[in-house]
Amino acid sequence: MKVAKFGGSSVANAEQLRKVANIIQDDRDRKVIVVSAPGKRFSEDTKVTDLLIEMGEAFLNNKPYEDKLETVLNRFKDITNELNISDEVINEIKQGVVEIFASDNSAELKMDAIKATGEDSLAKVLSVYLQSLGLKAAYLNPADAGIFVSDNPGSAQILEESYDHLYKLRDRDEIVIIPGFFGYTKDGKLITFSRGGSDITGSIVAAGVKADLYENFTDVDSVYCVNPNIVPSPKEITSLTYKEMRELSYAGFSVFHDEALIPAFKADIPVCIKNTNNPQAMGTIIVSKKEPQPNPVVGIASDTGFVSIYISKYLMNREIGFGRKLLTILEDEGISFEHTPSGIDDISVIIRESRMTKEKEERVITRIKNELHPDTVHIDRDLALIMVVGEGMDSTVGLADKATHAFAEANVNLEMINQGSSEVSMMFGIKSSKVDESVRALYKTFFG
Amino acid sequence: MKVAKFGGSSVANAEQLRKVANIIQDDRDRKVIVVSAPGKRFSEDTKVTDLLIEMGEAFLNNKPYEDKLETVLNRFKDITNELNISDEVINEIKQGVVEIFASDNSAELKMDAIKATGEDSLAKVLSVYLQSLGLKAAYLNPADAGIFVSDNPGSAQILEESYDHLYKLRDRDEIVIIPGFFGYTKDGKLITFSRGGSDITGSIVAAGVKADLYENFTDVDSVYCVNPNIVPSPKEITSLTYKEMRELSYAGFSVFHDEALIPAFKADIPVCIKNTNNPQAMGTIIVSKKEPQPNPVVGIASDTGFVSIYISKYLMNREIGFGRKLLTILEDEGISFEHTPSGIDDISVIIRESRMTKEKEERVITRIKNELHPDTVHIDRDLALIMVVGEGMDSTVGLADKATHAFAEANVNLEMINQGSSEVSMMFGIKSSKVDESVRALYKTFFG
Repeated sequence: MKVAKFGGSSVANAEQLRKVANIIQDDRDRKVIVVSAPGKRFSEDTKVTDLLIEMGEAFLNNKPYEDKLETVLNRFKDITNELNISDEVINEIKQGVVEIFASDNSAELKMDAIKATGEDSLAKVLSVYLQSLGLKAAYLNPADAGIFVSDNPGSAQILEESYDHLYKLRDRDEIVIIPGFFGYTKDGKLITFSRGGSDITGSIVAAGVKADLYENFTDVDSVYCVNPNIVPSPKEITSLTYKEMRELSYAGFSVFHDEALIPAFKADIPVCIKNTNNPQAMGTIIVSKKEPQPNPVVGIASDTGFVSIYISKYLMNREIGFGRKLLTILEDEGISFEHTPSGIDDISVIIRESRMTKEKEERVITRIKNELHPDTVHIDRDLALIMVVGEGMDSTVGLADKATHAFAEANVNLEMINQGSSEVSMMFGIKSSKVDESVRALYKTFFG
Repeated sequence: MKVAKFGGSSVANAEQLRKVANIIQDDRDRKVIVVSAPGKRFSEDTKVTDLLIEMGEAFLNNKPYEDKLETVLNRFKDITNELNISDEVINEIKQGVVEIFASDNSAELKMDAIKATGEDSLAKVLSVYLQSLGLKAAYLNPADAGIFVSDNPGSAQILEESYDHLYKLRDRDEIVIIPGFFGYTKDGKLITFSRGGSDITGSIVAAGVKADLYENFTDVDSVYCVNPNIVPSPKEITSLTYKEMRELSYAGFSVFHDEALIPAFKADIPVCIKNTNNPQAMGTIIVSKKEPQPNPVVGIASDTGFVSIYISKYLMNREIGFGRKLLTILEDEGISFEHTPSGIDDISVIIRESRMTKEKEERVITRIKNELHPDTVHIDRDLALIMVVGEGMDSTVGLADKATHAFAEANVNLEMINQGSSEVSMMFGIKSSKVDESVRALYKTFFG
């Protein structure tokens, strides 16, 4: 049994839904389908979920919202017209919106219910369409599927018992279509997961039914080993471990919403990323373990926008609590940090630039000077991190040599190397301006 | 004006003291002399300070101590006989010991006073000897020099006012001989610095008199760029910054008691390490700043006996407080750590093996498992750290490449690289068994 999840671009219009139906028909193991709301049809298009959010905010701010509703309705009308199926869903959306707005729920709950309308309606449309093709298919509301969640609007957490409820889906005969992105509290409130939450639903459902495979259909043939905007037509990754995926997604790989993987990871369900527009392509499979490879490097990721605070003080490592005092200053300012590499009399704190405003920076530096009395403190902006990722890297002699050689050949100064803390990656810090040539040099070294 | 400090091997016997006298006579700027207690004359010899400690412990445990006292007295008798000077010091030691043991001071204070006898007596002997050579020289007790310290037996901290008292030594006409290793509290208690404390006295005195140079006489021509037990006759280091010295001393370079350098460092006094047995050799000078060098690497240090605790947990970096909880467990067990390199879902803690007993290890691992629920936790023993050290390394392209290439050529797997947290070093973690070949390969690369 397979669980297949189709993302926003895969269900953006009638043409895409035809592809989805073909994919479902092609493999009768695809018994449980999870769908997103219709995404962008072209690059300047607006996702249905974004339209719904705008509509909800307009209503809550007592502004006209009818035009936004109209746009949403038209998206669905286009689909049902082209697929030649009943447009009953249009009335359901209209009526649903009226009921949500008229309810005495909190603003948060209203927003969650509005946001979920895209997925919910698309699931209904798809099941009607599959039925029209003669398939045994049924829309299944998350409440009926047993997807119960915590009462945290916008960031629901799944309740453990849901997995047992979902397991019963194995007994169903028909193809079941479940809208992603939301669940219900035990007392019946609709609550959404965090953004990108259809991936979460997919992963939860796959774990619940103990699927043999969780297929995640997107618009790429596979995960590439490097950003194709930096290296044209890079190698495709056929197989990836969860850990590798995580390390890659940390530094710029955004194929997957990584929190989404937790349920599948815990239940040890393999995940396959496939292309709705080219389902024949092998895709990339994410597994928990894989055989050792002669070249263990599977990918190179990079991300910019990091800042480093560097502090040195003679005999720092004799000063008990120095590091902790430093972290407390950051905590007081509400700044979360990424890494704290330390030398003997030096410590650096690596922070995402977005988390440190200019005012926070000034306060932090002043407090460090006044409270820790360092010999030196300075901030380096424009730091980029590059990750070279692969299981088995920790036991392969010469990989650091290869990587550092690539940087040297590209004439890039290494601000930071962090190797060995992770068994599946090496992390390099460089100036942001040098990212592209560095990634190209590493690609040439490991995949060229 | 120069302050010259002579270590234990430099004052071990009469022959050595003749060399010391020549060195003092050779440069009339050497106006303030700080001395250790007589050290080893040959490799199986016992240092006078160790004899004194044994004697003190014997007395405090109500055991016979007279034989130890006799051995100490004989060390000094040999010196005064050979130098043909008064042996008045012998009576002073005898009388001093009796007084110390008879006093109603605490055991700690008695031990401190006993321990200090070696330096104190040697300073007296040297001043008498210099006088016998026709020099204007005077023994100066630390109390009279104004070396006031905190009341922490065995680990005195200097009081700031001492520096002003010491500055007045500039007005003295004669050569002043001060015993190292101890000072006095404001109410007259004798308190020693931590072991190796003659270096501390030397550095304090140099800072106090604002010396042009603090000369530290030992038994090596200079600091070598690498351990001569690993690489025979390695290159000598002519000039070193304080920071470089610190990084080198962290990992096995034991030329200098690094805490001792703080007063000189703060007062920006250059320190010269010279050889009593070959005073013509240039020695190694330690300064706060130096000119950029084409090859910035000044030395390679290594040390074994490190342990790493490795912990991985999927989505660790989303879990607020994970690192802090981990450090709390270590703190509860009284384990201080060296570094905490972190990946995205991994963190390692590097600890000196001597700080973690088998029982502590078991408790720590159990608590980590129970309280942090990691996916993996394991301990790597037999870890060695290698430091490649040099100011300006942080802005020299290709150094990491050179270093990692050396490891790869030597077929050594890198367990850890920590570069960029210090501006003056790169740190590498490897298996202890691979230290020698790694250091040799790095030496060949950077100095060969």
